[in-house]
Parts: sequence; C-alpha cells; structure tokens
Amino acid sequence: MRFHGFFRSSSSYRCRIAFNLKRLSYAFVSTPLREGAHRTAAFRALNPQALVPALEDGGEVFTQSLAIIEWLDETHPTPPLLPADPATRAHVRAFAQVIACEVHPLQNLRVLDYLRQELGQDDAGVNRWLTRWIGEGLAACEALLSRRPESPFCFGEAPGLADICLVPQMFSADRFGIDTAAFPRLRAVRIACEALPAFAEAAPGRQPDAA
Amino acid sequence: MRFHGFFRSSSSYRCRIAFNLKRLSYAFVSTPLREGAHRTAAFRALNPQALVPALEDGGEVFTQSLAIIEWLDETHPTPPLLPADPATRAHVRAFAQVIACEVHPLQNLRVLDYLRQELGQDDAGVNRWLTRWIGEGLAACEALLSRRPESPFCFGEAPGLADICLVPQMFSADRFGIDTAAFPRLRAVRIACEALPAFAEAAPGRQPDAA
Repeated sequence: MRFHGFFRSSSSYRCRIAFNLKRLSYAFVSTPLREGAHRTAAFRALNPQALVPALEDGGEVFTQSLAIIEWLDETHPTPPLLPADPATRAHVRAFAQVIACEVHPLQNLRVLDYLRQELGQDDAGVNRWLTRWIGEGLAACEALLSRRPESPFCFGEAPGLADICLVPQMFSADRFGIDTAAFPRLRAVRIACEALPAFAEAAPGRQPDAA
Repeated sequence: MRFHGFFRSSSSYRCRIAFNLKRLSYAFVSTPLREGAHRTAAFRALNPQALVPALEDGGEVFTQSLAIIEWLDETHPTPPLLPADPATRAHVRAFAQVIACEVHPLQNLRVLDYLRQELGQDDAGVNRWLTRWIGEGLAACEALLSRRPESPFCFGEAPGLADICLVPQMFSADRFGIDTAAFPRLRAVRIACEALPAFAEAAPGRQPDAA
C-alpha cells in the first residue's frame, strides 16, 4: 500500500491511527499541502478532488478517510474498528460524521484560504470562524457521549472509528487555540487514546514530513 | 419509525430516498429550519447537534444521514444500497463523502447565515461561495465517475448510496443557481434516478411540509 498524506492533515492522521491499530505497514508519500502538492496534475490523476489522503493498493486508488478506514476494517477485520451491533455501529458512525462532515470541512486549508483571500478575514476573523464551528461540533460530541455509560474510549473498552476521528480533531482544536475545557469526556478519551502506541505513533509531530 | 426532517434539507432528502428504495414506511415529523425548530430544547434532546435528520426507532435516536442510511442497509438488506465487493463499497462511500463531507457542510443553512450575519456577505458573496464549493465538489464527482464504465446509475445498474447523495446535491445546485452543464454524467444519472418512484416521491416539492 502507498499512502499519500501530510503530517498535519486531520484526515491523514485518522488513517495513520487505523493503519497502526490494524498493524498494517505502508509506504508513505508526503504531499506537502502548503506547497500545493495536492493540486498538481500528478496528484489529481490519483484523486481528482485534489485532497489528501489517497491510498493506492492493488491497482485501485481509495480516497476519503472514512471510506478508506471502513475499507481497511472490511478487508482486515482484526481488531474491529466498528462494533458488531447495527445500532451501536450507527452511533459510532454518526459521532465520526459529526467531526468528518460538520467540523473538519469548515477548518480545511482551502476554506481558511478562502476566508482570508476572498472574504478578507484577518487572524481574528478566521479564529472566530474556527471557534464557532469547532466549538459547536465538539459540544455535540461531548453531548453524544454524555448519554452513554462511562467508558475509557468513546464507545466502550477498545478504541475504534469514533476515537480515530476524535483525537485528530482535538489536536486541531489545540493547534487553532480552541479551549476544550468544557469537554471533559472528550479530553479523557483523548488521554486514554494517546497512551496507546497506535495513536501516539500517528501523531503529526512523529511523522517524517513534520516541519 | 419516526423521522424528523425538513422538506428542503438535503440530508433529509437522502434519507427519504433510502426509505423509499427499501419500501419502509415511517411517521414524518416536520422540523421547519427557517423557524428554528431544530434549535429548541425538545429537538436538542433528540439530537444535541441541533441538525436534521433524526430517526427514532425502538428507543434509539439515530442521527447523521449517512449513518442512518448504513443502519437501514444493515437492518433491511434488500435491496442493497452498497455493493458487496469491499473495493467498490469504498469507492461508493468515497463518492458519497465528497458530497456529504466536502460540499454539503459548506452550503448548510447555519454556514450561509454566518456568511451573511457575521461576515457581511450579500447575495453575490454567498453565491460566489456556493459556486466555488458546489462547483469543485461536483467536478470531483464527475471525474470520479468518468474513470468508470458507463452505467445508468453512479456505480452500476441499480441505484445506491452514491445516487442517494448525488440527486439531492444536484437539486441544491439548481436551487442555488449553479450551472451543472459541465457535468454530463452526473446529469444523466440524475435523470435515470428521477425516473424511479423512490426518487421522485422523495423530492422536496412532494413533501407535506413543502412551502
């Protein structure tokens, strides 16, 4: 497998955690977003959406981090990243999608560039934007977990898809200076995850292309 | 099943198509977004994210349209909304996620309200925003399908998750005045879908809460 990603990309980070939990090795191809490496013709031939991550395997190119992770889970089922029960699977997927479909798209580099370049926003304006959407999204995540019994990970005794999405989002919140003190359960899950080598070794600062 | 949605919400529209393809009936509870019905305490008790859709069934509340649709597919497998082969499943999910994770979050009511109210954008500014993100997303979808053999639906001879996401997004593109002439394959799929009662009956204008 050849994995095209970037150390600081949240969606690349998700995939790295999943590879590590599954104990899968891969060749890493760094795609430096700040240099526009994702907008080259060569990269677009891999992924016409011009976004990382992209995963090459067996002549196929897989894109979109959640689709890649579900594919990994279906083709390498141990350990499972989703529970067996359909209702709990749905709750795990919904939690992951709060982050992947509602928070992350609004903090993407291309959107922040648009805010600055097209809408004339300065650092303070971009920060208000980020605080609003990351704050709302994490508050929803905290509320979703608060309905459930206490557990070390988002949905029980083992990490899975929800944790894979949460940890990179909490990392981004820190990076953007968003206060997460109001989300004690999310913070506790993050600590439990980061104590595991699969998560710790996937951290942006540990990647070969870290600045 | 009690389904909380809104006629014009893309994510509600996706769920309606899935219910219809599965021939499942449900009680519909309209949640008028323009009146803020999704921000009431009663609705937040159902979905702390304060977004439609929400589906009540057997004491559970399911949220996030893609998670709801995968749950429907797992609990009511016929007809399938995802192919059996893991690689093709990954491509279908990735296509759906281009729309659900990259396009739709940027055209959401709450984001457009923020552009107007917080960033002072007028109709022209909002329209430039929509044209950029919907255009980029649909171009990626067209490119993804162009790599595949011609077929009546996105991924073959029967409609599924990709088509369920595409048709509401094409409807939104029309509603926002986005030109889709550059996307002939997407337009052909839409026509094939809308010829089916499951899609036609899910259209916003056919819903009881249509304005």
